[in-house]
Amino acid sequence: MEKPSMPRGRTRSEDSREAILAAAVSIIGADGYAALSIERIARESGTGKQTIYRWWPTKADVVMEALLHKAEMHIPVPDTGSVHDDVREFLAASWRLARMPQVADLLRALAAEAQLDPVFAGRFRDTFIEHRRAALTTILSRHSPPQSVPGIRVSTLVDVVFGVLWYRLLIMPTDFDDALADELANLITTGAN
Amino acid sequence: MEKPSMPRGRTRSEDSREAILAAAVSIIGADGYAALSIERIARESGTGKQTIYRWWPTKADVVMEALLHKAEMHIPVPDTGSVHDDVREFLAASWRLARMPQVADLLRALAAEAQLDPVFAGRFRDTFIEHRRAALTTILSRHSPPQSVPGIRVSTLVDVVFGVLWYRLLIMPTDFDDALADELANLITTGAN
Repeated sequence: MEKPSMPRGRTRSEDSREAILAAAVSIIGADGYAALSIERIARESGTGKQTIYRWWPTKADVVMEALLHKAEMHIPVPDTGSVHDDVREFLAASWRLARMPQVADLLRALAAEAQLDPVFAGRFRDTFIEHRRAALTTILSRHSPPQSVPGIRVSTLVDVVFGVLWYRLLIMPTDFDDALADELANLITTGAN
Repeated sequence: MEKPSMPRGRTRSEDSREAILAAAVSIIGADGYAALSIERIARESGTGKQTIYRWWPTKADVVMEALLHKAEMHIPVPDTGSVHDDVREFLAASWRLARMPQVADLLRALAAEAQLDPVFAGRFRDTFIEHRRAALTTILSRHSPPQSVPGIRVSTLVDVVFGVLWYRLLIMPTDFDDALADELANLITTGAN
């Protein structure tokens, strides 16, 4: 039976989840990823460690969900009728996030955790990486005949975009400039200009 | 004064360098990167730790030189007159190396060291990453008018190739299939087919 005092559409457990994610983001903002612990998240979110471990096996999983939430909030999957323009907007929004040092640091932290912990690596790929790929795949697959490059699998075009993104985060730190977003949007769509 | 007993074109120090690189490769092959130490390289190469440290500050630097040497030996920078065919050959050879589990593991180990050690990260970028970029840049810049994609900087096309390579090594493990090499060669050159 539902409690009448509950605000519509929200449950106590949704409130706790949000408090936990917000606390994780705030701890990292103040003291960096290394300072993050389940204990401190519990303390600062006013929840119990048990509650956190019920939903997330490790602190990296908490961060992954917070980042995925941020990406889904701030990176649109537009449908303007032009795949080129949709990709351009998707890339511009992705670049804006990647330019935020805090976001970039967390993406690097997740990649590092995935290198160290093969079990987390599986969750990282199946959740974060696949969700972000799916968003871009939706855009590139929307029209028929496709407005992406003929003769090249959509999955390869998705590799190109996220390949450049992660390469610049992990291997060859370079600005995420808007010219790069334009170039990639032109490269992977035929609706250019 | 040159010693007459020296073989032509070789010096004792070149022999030592090669013995050190070969020992590093053989130790990793037998027991993995984690088992590698300067001490063990010295023992198995018949050189002294001092000698190794004179040339390489860390074990990661030894591995980096061994890998760069391997890449330069096995990945050609062809000049057939067709940028498309040159890129295709460059990619096919790069993929062949990346498919070798030992090579892939070492590339991952270098990337992980670069995340942990910002000073090594600088040497990694300035040496390994820049050398590999320079090889592909040579191919893409050779002809005028360029046979690469108009309106897109060569550096972006280089990002695309190495982006996909590192993405598949570090983030989204997927086969380095020849179809992918073909697709990327088509995507970044206009001399396709």
